[in-house]
Amino acid sequence: MATILDSAKALEQTIRESAEFAHLKQQYDNVYADEATKKLFDDFRNLQFTLQTKQMQREEITQEEIIQAQEHVVAVQQNEKISALLEAEQQMSNVIQQINQIVMKPLEELYND
Amino acid sequence: MATILDSAKALEQTIRESAEFAHLKQQYDNVYADEATKKLFDDFRNLQFTLQTKQMQREEITQEEIIQAQEHVVAVQQNEKISALLEAEQQMSNVIQQINQIVMKPLEELYND
Repeated sequence: MATILDSAKALEQTIRESAEFAHLKQQYDNVYADEATKKLFDDFRNLQFTLQTKQMQREEITQEEIIQAQEHVVAVQQNEKISALLEAEQQMSNVIQQINQIVMKPLEELYND
Repeated sequence: MATILDSAKALEQTIRESAEFAHLKQQYDNVYADEATKKLFDDFRNLQFTLQTKQMQREEITQEEIIQAQEHVVAVQQNEKISALLEAEQQMSNVIQQINQIVMKPLEELYND
């Protein structure tokens, strides 16, 4: 058990020291350094979270909420700092997905044998 | 990027060579070596999958299906080989959960800062 967790911690450290993580952190800092941009981003995230929660609980999403969400997406896309952060998040999410695929391979092979 | 994936591959290799993985594989082989046990286990898994899919799609699960599932659980629990496999799977699932927690720590810290 110790060995697997040691190996996982080595991976954690590699992520921490990676260019991808540094880049994401930089974009995040850029967004949060500016009060107006920070507010726009936080509102966008909160609205996203509310709509996703409603969707998961199969609650109705109102026409008003859809329009509000669309307006937020437009505002966020026009903001260079937030666009750059969303792109960096997408890149990191791809890395995490690749990690998961690699790590789950032994189990997958076992079950597809 | 290469470094993160190299590190993930090192973790994959550690999992492959771990006592936990060898144990799981052994339990799995034990179940599949015996035709009757294999059938019982496959039926159990298929029923589980059917019920989970229905649940996710919010389809109604019939009284008959509930009774069928309960009978399967009893039969499976009474089978030593399958019980041992389910336990080994649970242990491996705990390890995977711990890996995920470790690997996601840098991102979690970034967002909770």
